[in-house]
Amino acid sequence: MMAKVTDAEMAWPGLAGRIEGAAHILPIRVYHEDTDFTGLVYHANYLKFCERGRSDFVRLSGISQTELFDAGGDKEPAAFVVRHMDVDFLKPARMDDVLEIVTSVDEIGGAAMTLLQDVTREGTVLARLRVRIMLVSRSGKVRRLGDLVRASLERFVNQEG
Amino acid sequence: MMAKVTDAEMAWPGLAGRIEGAAHILPIRVYHEDTDFTGLVYHANYLKFCERGRSDFVRLSGISQTELFDAGGDKEPAAFVVRHMDVDFLKPARMDDVLEIVTSVDEIGGAAMTLLQDVTREGTVLARLRVRIMLVSRSGKVRRLGDLVRASLERFVNQEG
Amino acid sequence: MMAKVTDAEMAWPGLAGRIEGAAHILPIRVYHEDTDFTGLVYHANYLKFCERGRSDFVRLSGISQTELFDAGGDKEPAAFVVRHMDVDFLKPARMDDVLEIVTSVDEIGGAAMTLLQDVTREGTVLARLRVRIMLVSRSGKVRRLGDLVRASLERFVNQEG
Amino acid sequence: MMAKVTDAEMAWPGLAGRIEGAAHILPIRVYHEDTDFTGLVYHANYLKFCERGRSDFVRLSGISQTELFDAGGDKEPAAFVVRHMDVDFLKPARMDDVLEIVTSVDEIGGAAMTLLQDVTREGTVLARLRVRIMLVSRSGKVRRLGDLVRASLERFVNQEG
Repeated sequence: MMAKVTDAEMAWPGLAGRIEGAAHILPIRVYHEDTDFTGLVYHANYLKFCERGRSDFVRLSGISQTELFDAGGDKEPAAFVVRHMDVDFLKPARMDDVLEIVTSVDEIGGAAMTLLQDVTREGTVLARLRVRIMLVSRSGKVRRLGDLVRASLERFVNQEG
Repeated sequence: MMAKVTDAEMAWPGLAGRIEGAAHILPIRVYHEDTDFTGLVYHANYLKFCERGRSDFVRLSGISQTELFDAGGDKEPAAFVVRHMDVDFLKPARMDDVLEIVTSVDEIGGAAMTLLQDVTREGTVLARLRVRIMLVSRSGKVRRLGDLVRASLERFVNQEG
Repeated sequence: MMAKVTDAEMAWPGLAGRIEGAAHILPIRVYHEDTDFTGLVYHANYLKFCERGRSDFVRLSGISQTELFDAGGDKEPAAFVVRHMDVDFLKPARMDDVLEIVTSVDEIGGAAMTLLQDVTREGTVLARLRVRIMLVSRSGKVRRLGDLVRASLERFVNQEG
Repeated sequence: MMAKVTDAEMAWPGLAGRIEGAAHILPIRVYHEDTDFTGLVYHANYLKFCERGRSDFVRLSGISQTELFDAGGDKEPAAFVVRHMDVDFLKPARMDDVLEIVTSVDEIGGAAMTLLQDVTREGTVLARLRVRIMLVSRSGKVRRLGDLVRASLERFVNQEG
C-alpha cells in the first residue's frame, strides 16, 4: 500500500507539496479554469484545491489511494469519501494567484477522521474548511481506517486543536 | 433588472426548473464530467449543481444576475457571493442519474440570506446544503440586498423552517 | 442495453433534448461554472457541452452507456472514447446564455463513428466540433460497434454530409 | 507587462514549469477531479492541462496575462483566445499519474500563433494538440500580437517543425 515514487516526481519534489511540522502544504496556481465571470475563483473550486491537498497529504504520508482499493485484507475496492464539510469563504482568490493549501488532522477515530484545511495566499487565509472523511467500500459499506492508515496519519494530528 | 426570457427558453420551460409552493426545483442529469474514478459523482460537483439551482431560482424570481452588475443605483458591478456553506453528503449519485435540486429560503436579512438546498433522487436526499450568501461589489464591499431583491425572494422563505 | 426512463425523466421530456430529423438537439444553460475571468465561456467547456449532447443523443437512440459496460456478449466493461477532435471556436458564449447543441452523425464504420456537433445560440454557430469516437473496453481493446449500436444510430447519418 | 514573481513562486521554482531548449515543460498531477467513471482522465481535461501549460509558458516568457488586459497602448482589456484546436487522444491517463505538458511554438504571425502541445507520461505521448491562438479585446476585436509578445515568444519557435 506504499505509494511508488516515479523519476518525474523525484525531479519535481514540490509537485506533491511538503510537510512542515504537523501540517502538509501544497502550493497551487490559479488558472483560467478556476475563475468565473466575476473575475474571482469559483467557490466550488476551493474544494477541488483542498481535495488536491488531501490527496498529496495522504500520498506523502505513504498511503496510495489507488492501492487503497485493495486495502484491509479483503478485495473490495475502497476510497476516502467526504461525509461532511463546513466552509468559510473569507476573501477571494484571483487569476494567476499562488495559493498554499495547509492541511492538518483534527481528529482520527475508528472509522472517520476530521481534517482542517486553510486556503492561504502569502499567509492570509482566504477559505477555511473542516472536512469529515470516511473510508467506504464500493458497495457503500464503511470501513475501519485500519492500523496502517492510522499509523501513517497520527503524527499529523494538530496538537493545538 | 428583470431577466429577459428568450424564445429558446419559452420553448423549453423546464430549462430553468419550476416553482412548487415555496421551493424551486431544478432537474439535473449526471454526465461523464460529474463523476470520478470511484464511479460516483465528485463531491465538489454537488456544489455546482446547487449553484445552478440558485441561479435558476433567482432567474425565476425575476432577478437577472448579469444585470445585478448595475443594481442599487450606482454603477459598480455586484454579484452574489457564498460566504459560508455547510454540506452533508448522505448518499452517492452516479452516472446517468436524474437529480432534482430543491432550493428554499431559510432567512433573508438586510445584507445576507441563507438558502437550504437538497440534492435529491426520486425523493431521497443525497446531499444537503445550507448556504449563506451576500451581495458583494467588485471592489469587495458588501451591498444591502435592496428592496427589489427582497421583494422577489421573500415569498420563498420557508414557513416550516 | 435499452435505457430505462424514470418518472422524473417523463415529467421533464426536455432534459435529454429532442430529435429533429437526423439531428439531436440539447438546450444548455451557461452557468457561473462555465465562464472564466474574461467574462466568456472557458474553451474546454464547449467540449463538456458537446459530450452532454452526445450522451443524450445516444440515450434517445435507445443505448444505455452504463449498460454498454456489459455489451457485446462478454463481460468486460466498454465505453465510448474520443480519439480525435477538431474544433473551431467562432464566437463566444456568455453567462446566462441558452445554447443548443446540435449533433448529427457524419459516418459510422465498423469500429468508429464521426459526429458533427454545433454549439449554437439562437441559430448562430458559436463552435463547431468534428469528433471521432470508438468503443473501447476497460483493458484498452477496440470493440466493434455492434449491430445494436449501428442499428440505433444509422438513421442519424447526415444525408447532406 | 512583465510578470511579477512572488516569494512563494521563488520558493517553488517548479510551480510554473521549466524551459528546456525551445520547449516549455509543466509537470501536472492527475487528481480525482480529472477522472471520470470509466477510471480514465475525462477528455476535456487534457485541454485544461494544456491551457495551464500555455499560461505558464507565457508566464515564463515574461508576459503577464492579467496585465495583458492593458497591453498595446490603449486601455481595453485583451486576452489570448483559442480559435482552432486539433486533438489526437492516443492513450489514456489515470488517477495519480504524473504528466508533463510539453509546449512549443509552431508559428507566430501578425495576429495569431500556433502552438504544439504534447501531454506525456514518462516520455510517452498520451495526447497531442495543435492550438491556434489570437489576442482579442473584450469587445471582440482581434489585436496584433505586438512587438513585446513577439519578442518574448520568438525564441520558442520550433526549429524542426
